[in-house]
Amino acid sequence: MKEMVNFDEQNFLKIGASIYEKRSMIEHIAEVICKEDFTNLFFTSSGGSQAMMDPFWDMVNEMSDIPVYRMISAEYLACGHNQVKEGTVAFLASKSGDTKETMAAAKVLKEKGVRLVSVIGKSDSPLEKISDYSVVYGDGRPQELILYLLIGKLLHIEGYFDAYPQFADELKHLPQVLCDVRIAVDEKAKQYAQDYHKEPYNIWIGSGNCWPVCYAFAMCVLEESQWIRTKSVSSPEFFHGTLELVEKGVCCTLVVTEGKTRELDLRVKRFLETHTDKFTCFDTADYPFAGISDAFRGILSPVVMNAILQRISKNMEAVTEHSLDIRRYYRVESY
Amino acid sequence: MKEMVNFDEQNFLKIGASIYEKRSMIEHIAEVICKEDFTNLFFTSSGGSQAMMDPFWDMVNEMSDIPVYRMISAEYLACGHNQVKEGTVAFLASKSGDTKETMAAAKVLKEKGVRLVSVIGKSDSPLEKISDYSVVYGDGRPQELILYLLIGKLLHIEGYFDAYPQFADELKHLPQVLCDVRIAVDEKAKQYAQDYHKEPYNIWIGSGNCWPVCYAFAMCVLEESQWIRTKSVSSPEFFHGTLELVEKGVCCTLVVTEGKTRELDLRVKRFLETHTDKFTCFDTADYPFAGISDAFRGILSPVVMNAILQRISKNMEAVTEHSLDIRRYYRVESY
Repeated sequence: MKEMVNFDEQNFLKIGASIYEKRSMIEHIAEVICKEDFTNLFFTSSGGSQAMMDPFWDMVNEMSDIPVYRMISAEYLACGHNQVKEGTVAFLASKSGDTKETMAAAKVLKEKGVRLVSVIGKSDSPLEKISDYSVVYGDGRPQELILYLLIGKLLHIEGYFDAYPQFADELKHLPQVLCDVRIAVDEKAKQYAQDYHKEPYNIWIGSGNCWPVCYAFAMCVLEESQWIRTKSVSSPEFFHGTLELVEKGVCCTLVVTEGKTRELDLRVKRFLETHTDKFTCFDTADYPFAGISDAFRGILSPVVMNAILQRISKNMEAVTEHSLDIRRYYRVESY
Repeated sequence: MKEMVNFDEQNFLKIGASIYEKRSMIEHIAEVICKEDFTNLFFTSSGGSQAMMDPFWDMVNEMSDIPVYRMISAEYLACGHNQVKEGTVAFLASKSGDTKETMAAAKVLKEKGVRLVSVIGKSDSPLEKISDYSVVYGDGRPQELILYLLIGKLLHIEGYFDAYPQFADELKHLPQVLCDVRIAVDEKAKQYAQDYHKEPYNIWIGSGNCWPVCYAFAMCVLEESQWIRTKSVSSPEFFHGTLELVEKGVCCTLVVTEGKTRELDLRVKRFLETHTDKFTCFDTADYPFAGISDAFRGILSPVVMNAILQRISKNMEAVTEHSLDIRRYYRVESY
């Protein structure tokens, strides 16, 4: 096996298994929510945590008739959401369990009688304390696995996801798939990091359930962790402005989903292939998902794309010698 | 009066009046919609037209209990929206009246039995033909005036906007307000264009009902019409990544709304004032709205901000000698 920086397959499998082991506990939360009944679902958090949950908005919207909403916590606090009230079940996520706006939103929601289900990195956090139900993943990864089980089971109970038992069984293979994908993409990601880490401007494009992945990688990894300048734009919107910036020498990176908006991405691909010499495309379809049925590939595109892009960040860190953990402002200054 | 490029006050007043003259026709559409009853509202279009309508999502959400949704037409076509069905009233906008994805969405919506209300620049367009109701503005501006009357009247009839008659009466002054604002901001906008037209990277920040204004100005004006590189990010999300890019020499521009998210913008203002020497803030609160009550300033922030920013584009065009009408790809190539 080629040498890969910052990669420990055994650990990846272990931290993946540690989440899958919680399957029955997670499914039990879905059962209780459905038994108590609900009128709609609401995803709210901040930054990368919201982006991690956003594809589950797409999943509920595409697979069911359940009303589902999403809103950044800070905007929810300022504006409210006119359908979020008693009867709503809210999903919140926070690595630290104490993200300021997310916690403030949790308090407001709680006062309204909204039930809170949280996905949290640390145990004994303020967010866990206020939540009706929570899953603490600690070192476990990926967080998305929790939501595939939680939302998948919920859709199943409500009659929208007949194949869920098979889906959930096959998710056992997800950690290995995510390792395999990392290994398969690593050379390409390394080359990408070497070629483009000094680019003055990076256009990132994606759509549908991979739009949040694209948006968050540009903002929370390249900008926040590597201080690299980006512009992220969704595939259909790319054609309503950003395309005019493209010419030889402009670095463009496209993430292609296997979800319902795939054709929107492929349209961008065809355009960029002939309009810039610095074009890279990452497509989940290029990788096998061993042990997982083709029918579930679209739903799983976001978590697979995150694994792909993580190989860019890990290689970028090695090339730039700029640790992914350095911040000059976030949690360093107060503002 | 100082000389202003590309500005003709009399014409602005005339094209504003030409829309206001349609008030009773526009209000009649709202009356018919409410009489026929509806279950929810849906805003869908593409690019700048969607951004023009997006603040009305905020208006409905903040002022009423009416379920309201918004989605880019291309994504709607690919994914659907699980609450949009018979009983929905959809609002669409298109300058040309034949924007590809918007027209395709109109057809799909029509087949579902959704009523279509369109705001269109040209008469006898395909979009007008397929719509149940439409307002053709031709040379009239701003388009937003149509939606303030349409959505305002609708909210009034449904019992959510008691002050609407006063609001609509005062909107007669909007064209003059938008002229006054243009005149008042022009020197600042001119200086801005001179100082920053060669910046290699421009961070644009805004929130709430002015987020779509910020997003669209960066993408549809600076990128599409001036080929200037931007990153737009919402005020709360700025603190979850993009802030780390800021240092001396990084050009940052903030649009401050008087709507409900004003405090989120002011937090960004406080941060940027001390972290870069290339910071500009455009705040609707800096300008009088003669003849319009303070209570309506927040709702009107988007249209006022668009007038402010238009002085940047008009001055930018003069400075760069790059016409706002040049495209290298859009409607030049097919893709």
